[in-house]
Amino acid sequence: MPTEQHANEPPPAHVRVLDGQGWVGLVSHMGDETTIVNAARVSFGKRRESMDERDIVLLKYMLDNRHTSPLEHIAFTFIVHCPLFIRSQWHRHRTWSYNEISRRYTSVDLECYVPPEVREQAETNRQASVDPVHLDQAAAKALIAAHNQASIDLYHRLVGMGVCREQARGSLPQNLMTTFWATVDLHNLLHFLELRDSEHAQWEIRQYAVAIKQLVKPYIPNLAHILGW
Amino acid sequence: MPTEQHANEPPPAHVRVLDGQGWVGLVSHMGDETTIVNAARVSFGKRRESMDERDIVLLKYMLDNRHTSPLEHIAFTFIVHCPLFIRSQWHRHRTWSYNEISRRYTSVDLECYVPPEVREQAETNRQASVDPVHLDQAAAKALIAAHNQASIDLYHRLVGMGVCREQARGSLPQNLMTTFWATVDLHNLLHFLELRDSEHAQWEIRQYAVAIKQLVKPYIPNLAHILGW
Amino acid sequence: MPTEQHANEPPPAHVRVLDGQGWVGLVSHMGDETTIVNAARVSFGKRRESMDERDIVLLKYMLDNRHTSPLEHIAFTFIVHCPLFIRSQWHRHRTWSYNEISRRYTSVDLECYVPPEVREQAETNRQASVDPVHLDQAAAKALIAAHNQASIDLYHRLVGMGVCREQARGSLPQNLMTTFWATVDLHNLLHFLELRDSEHAQWEIRQYAVAIKQLVKPYIPNLAHILGW
Amino acid sequence: MPTEQHANEPPPAHVRVLDGQGWVGLVSHMGDETTIVNAARVSFGKRRESMDERDIVLLKYMLDNRHTSPLEHIAFTFIVHCPLFIRSQWHRHRTWSYNEISRRYTSVDLECYVPPEVREQAETNRQASVDPVHLDQAAAKALIAAHNQASIDLYHRLVGMGVCREQARGSLPQNLMTTFWATVDLHNLLHFLELRDSEHAQWEIRQYAVAIKQLVKPYIPNLAHILGW
Repeated sequence: MPTEQHANEPPPAHVRVLDGQGWVGLVSHMGDETTIVNAARVSFGKRRESMDERDIVLLKYMLDNRHTSPLEHIAFTFIVHCPLFIRSQWHRHRTWSYNEISRRYTSVDLECYVPPEVREQAETNRQASVDPVHLDQAAAKALIAAHNQASIDLYHRLVGMGVCREQARGSLPQNLMTTFWATVDLHNLLHFLELRDSEHAQWEIRQYAVAIKQLVKPYIPNLAHILGW
Repeated sequence: MPTEQHANEPPPAHVRVLDGQGWVGLVSHMGDETTIVNAARVSFGKRRESMDERDIVLLKYMLDNRHTSPLEHIAFTFIVHCPLFIRSQWHRHRTWSYNEISRRYTSVDLECYVPPEVREQAETNRQASVDPVHLDQAAAKALIAAHNQASIDLYHRLVGMGVCREQARGSLPQNLMTTFWATVDLHNLLHFLELRDSEHAQWEIRQYAVAIKQLVKPYIPNLAHILGW
Repeated sequence: MPTEQHANEPPPAHVRVLDGQGWVGLVSHMGDETTIVNAARVSFGKRRESMDERDIVLLKYMLDNRHTSPLEHIAFTFIVHCPLFIRSQWHRHRTWSYNEISRRYTSVDLECYVPPEVREQAETNRQASVDPVHLDQAAAKALIAAHNQASIDLYHRLVGMGVCREQARGSLPQNLMTTFWATVDLHNLLHFLELRDSEHAQWEIRQYAVAIKQLVKPYIPNLAHILGW
Repeated sequence: MPTEQHANEPPPAHVRVLDGQGWVGLVSHMGDETTIVNAARVSFGKRRESMDERDIVLLKYMLDNRHTSPLEHIAFTFIVHCPLFIRSQWHRHRTWSYNEISRRYTSVDLECYVPPEVREQAETNRQASVDPVHLDQAAAKALIAAHNQASIDLYHRLVGMGVCREQARGSLPQNLMTTFWATVDLHNLLHFLELRDSEHAQWEIRQYAVAIKQLVKPYIPNLAHILGW
C-alpha cells in the first residue's frame, strides 16, 4: 500500500518562505522555451527542433510587444502552503486551477501563522505597511500567537461538543495555514508575478512570488534573463 | 456632494439571510428571455421582437440538451454580505467578476457571524452536518460569539499598537462578515445554483443560492418554471 | 405570432461599416460609470448613489494603474455582421460570449464581402498592407466579386445534388458574411479595442472597433474622455 | 542552425485523419493519474507517491459526481492540421490556448480539403448529414476539388497583382487546411470529447476527437477504462 503523506509536507522541489512557516513546491511542468518559439513560429508556418540566437530575439520581441499567447503552452503545477489571507489574494487570480484542503472534511494539521516581523501601518498609503520603528515586536507577536492558539483550542472544544467542522472552522483565524494545488500557464504566471512580486503587494505574498521565480527559472533561462529576474 | 453609504448596507432590491446577519442584493441586470431565444435563433439566421409559445418550447429544448451558450448574453450584478468562509467557497467560481472590501485598506464595520443554529457533525458523511440533537446550542453560540468579539478586540488592540491592517487582519476569524460585488452571466449562474442550492452544499451558502433564485426569477419566469424553482 | 426578422438585418442602434456591407449593433447593456466607481469603492467599504468630480479622478486613477476589475460589472451585447475572416480574428478573444449563424443549419442569406478598396501588400511588414498605388483596383475587385458569386453558385449546386450543408459550406469563401451575437464586459472590451483599433490591426476589423467605440461612448462619457476617444 | 520544418508536417506522435489529409499530433503533456488523485486528496490533507486500487475507486467517484477540478492539473498540447470550418468549430471552445498559422503573414503550403466521402443532407435533422445513397460521389468531389484549385489560383493571381495577403485570403474557401497549436487541461478536454466524439458532431471533427482519445489514452489508462473508451 502506498505511503500516505500529510499535505502540509512539501514535495522534493520546494522553497521555504515566511521564516520556514510556509513553502511553495513545484510538482510538474510542461513545455520549455523551444515550445514557446515553435508555438509562435506556427504563425509563419514553421517549426524547429531546437533553439538558436534568432529564437532568443523572437522571445524578446514577443515580450516587448505583449504577443504572449505562445506562453500559454507552458504550464506549471505548484503546491502552496500559506496563511488563509494569502490564499484569498491568490484565488482572486481566476486563470489558475486550484484544489485546496477542505476544513469541511478534516481537522488534521491545524497550525497558524505568526509574522516573523510585524510591520507598521504606512501613514501615506492606506493599503501599505512599512518597516517597524516604534512597534513592540515581541508584544505584538506574543498576542498574535496566543490568539492563534486560543482559536485552535476553541475549534477543538466546539468539535468536541459535537459542532460540525464546517461551522466550527468559522472561529479559526485568517492566520490559519492552508495547502492547495495550483496550476497555471506561463502567460498568466507572468501576470501574477508582475502584480505580486511588486512593492504594492503585501510582503507575505511577495515572498511566494519570489520563490516561484526561483523554482521556474531553470525551465525558462532566456525568458528569465530578458525579464531581469 | 453625493451621500456616502456604508458597503454593509444593502441596495433596495435585496433578500436577508442567516437570521438577518447576511444579505444579497441585485444591483443591475442585462437581457431577458427574449434575448436568450434570439441569441439561440441566430443559428437559424432569424430574430424576433417578442416571445410566443414556440420560444418557450425552444427554451426547454435548450436546457434539456445543455445548449446553454445563449444564456451567456444575460447577466446579473449582485452585492453579497456574508461570512469569509462562504466568500471563499463562492470565489472558487472563477467565471464570476468580483470586487470585495479590502481589509488592507479599512477597519470599518467589523462584525462577525454567529450561526442562528449550530449543527452537528454528520457521522456518515465526513463533509456534512445534521440537525442538532444532543448539542448544547446556547453554550456553543455563546462560545462562538465571545471568540468573535475577542478577535475584533485583539484586532483593534494590534492596530492601536501600530500594527499594519494587512497583518492585524490575520487574527480576525473566518466568521468575519465581508461584502463583495459579484457579476455573472446566466449560464454560469445556473451552474452555481445547481451546486450551491443542493443538499451537498453547506447550509449557509445554500441560503444565498435560494435568495438569488428569488431575486432573478422575475426576469426569467419561463426558465424558472422549466427549472422547477 | 411575432414577426420574424432575418438575422442579417441590424437592430435599431447600429453603425454600418465596410461601405455598408457590414454593421455592428448594440442590443443591450448593463451598468454605467456609477457602477464602476461603486464597485471600486467597495474596497473602502463605501457606496454612493451618484457621481461627482472625485469619482472622475478615481476613474482616471483606475485606468492609469490598471485596476480594471471594477470594469467587469459593465457589460454590452452586440450583434456583428462581418466577413468570416474577421469573425475568426474576433473569436480568438475568448472572454466574449458568442452565438453565430450556423451553416450546418441554414442556407439563407448567403452574401460575400468585396473590399471597398483593395490594399497592397506592405514591403517592410509581412503582416501589413498599405494604400494602393500601382494596383488595378477595378480588376482586383471584379475578380473577387466573380469568385464570390461562383462560390455561392457552386454551394447551391452541391446542395441541389443532395450534398449536406455542413460539407457544401467548405466551398464558400472566407469573404462570406456571417452574423453573431457577442457579449463582453467593459474590461475585456477595452482590451479588444486597444488591440483592434490599432495600426497593427487589419483595416476591416478596425472599422468594427471604431464603430463599437461610437456605440458605447454615450454610456461611459468620462471614461471615453480619459481614453482620448 | 536548427533545421526548419514546415508547420504542416506532423510531430512524431500523431494520428492521421480524413483519409490522410489532416492529422493531430501530441507535442507535450503534464501530469498523470497520480497527479489527479493527489490533487483530489489534498481536500483530506493527504498525498501519496503512487496509486493503488483505492485511487481507481476515487477516480471513478470523481467522474460519477462531476468532481472534476483535480483533472485541471493534467494538460496536453496538440498540433492540429484541419480544414478552416473545423478550426472554427474547435475555437469556439474558449478554455483552450491556441496559436494558428496566419494568412496575414504567409502564403506557404496552401492546400484544401476534399471530403473522402460526400454525405447527404439529413431529412429529419436540419443540422445533420447521412450516408449517401443517391448522391453522385465522383461528380460532387470533382466539383469541390476543382473549386478548391480555382480558389488557390485566384489567390496567387491576386497576390501577383499586388493585393495584400490579408485581403486576398478572403477568396480562399473554408476547405483550406490550417495548422494550429492547442493546449487544454484534462477537465476541459473531456468536455470537448463528450461534445465532439458524438453523433451530433460533424463527422470531420469527430475524427479528430477519436484521434485525440487514442493519443492521450496511454497517459490516463484507468480514466479511459472508466469512460469506456
